[in-house]
Amino acid sequence: MARVSQAHLDARRRQILDGAARCFARNGFHATSMQDVLREAGLSAGAVYRYFRSKEEIIGAIARECFTTVRAAFEDASRETPPPPPDVIVGRALHQVYEGPAGFTQGGGQSFARLILQVWSETLRNDELAAILRDGFGHLREGWTALVESYQQAGLVRDDIPADHMARTLIGTVQGFIAQQALFGEVDVEVLRNGLRGVMSMGATASAASAERAS
Amino acid sequence: MARVSQAHLDARRRQILDGAARCFARNGFHATSMQDVLREAGLSAGAVYRYFRSKEEIIGAIARECFTTVRAAFEDASRETPPPPPDVIVGRALHQVYEGPAGFTQGGGQSFARLILQVWSETLRNDELAAILRDGFGHLREGWTALVESYQQAGLVRDDIPADHMARTLIGTVQGFIAQQALFGEVDVEVLRNGLRGVMSMGATASAASAERAS
Repeated sequence: MARVSQAHLDARRRQILDGAARCFARNGFHATSMQDVLREAGLSAGAVYRYFRSKEEIIGAIARECFTTVRAAFEDASRETPPPPPDVIVGRALHQVYEGPAGFTQGGGQSFARLILQVWSETLRNDELAAILRDGFGHLREGWTALVESYQQAGLVRDDIPADHMARTLIGTVQGFIAQQALFGEVDVEVLRNGLRGVMSMGATASAASAERAS
Repeated sequence: MARVSQAHLDARRRQILDGAARCFARNGFHATSMQDVLREAGLSAGAVYRYFRSKEEIIGAIARECFTTVRAAFEDASRETPPPPPDVIVGRALHQVYEGPAGFTQGGGQSFARLILQVWSETLRNDELAAILRDGFGHLREGWTALVESYQQAGLVRDDIPADHMARTLIGTVQGFIAQQALFGEVDVEVLRNGLRGVMSMGATASAASAERAS
């Protein structure tokens, strides 16, 4: 057997994942066959099955990779002192996913968003995928909860509301952004950043107004 | 032909939609056949096909009904002066969907959320469903934009951010809530209401703190 470098193996794996992601985003997970993936990646069955035994394994690997990218962006942000506000973190994380090494977004943001929607839908009947998503979501939720707690300690946010509820809601804004992009067409990340900044100001101006009335 | 009352027709239609919703939530849209729907609704093929020619027509009717309920809750809220804050509106709209006449949530909130995820996924390859969702989303977006503009006029929120971006982000928090409920289990609507209130306070305490420093 010929010796194959790790770089070569990685490149092949990348080629398969990117090809599969394009197929899933275009035709849906169910309408895509392993044959379609081979054709799209320009590889033989032998080359592909060496890495992945099934479509299910491929979509699992795609989901894992997305979480790894988001988590890295998130951990970078939370190491800063003071931590940046949520709109900055969300913006950076989405930019890193969209511009990162994974080729999932070659077809533009909407293509990526459609892929994520496929992953969600498939998760409802695939226990392995469900475990990957539960694990990824759990880590994101812990990370955001710790961050919200540090906002609370710094007096930047109400401390009489469970940090976990804010964590879930902030993650939800990103999931909602992805759903809208998948269903209704391209949206710039700036829309979500602006929207978050606006929602964050809803208490601000209200309390500023009442302070003004009080003075 | 026997005369049939409108009430009877409506009840039959309801029976079919509820049965289909249970099947879709449980087994997914693709794994459900019209036979499954007949069995679940306890009706004959003749009775069902009189109302809906296909699964696609049924899921379209379900999507339309959800939007109608949300829209009614939303319009009630926006008629109030001053309009209630977003967390109150979102809470009311979700409660009305969950407790309204439609039996989509008989299986609990998660069952409903899984049904919505099926609708989203199916929308990617069904033009008719895409048109229904685009229309419903468009109306919601207009409604929220008008509401955010009225918050802005009342000085309750930053007016240097496009109202539409806040509208999309607020709708996104609900879509994210639904995705989390579908993928990771039951969540109380209170989590989203608390989370929204918390995020809304992020500017508040920051500006209160800076006002304190200034004084």
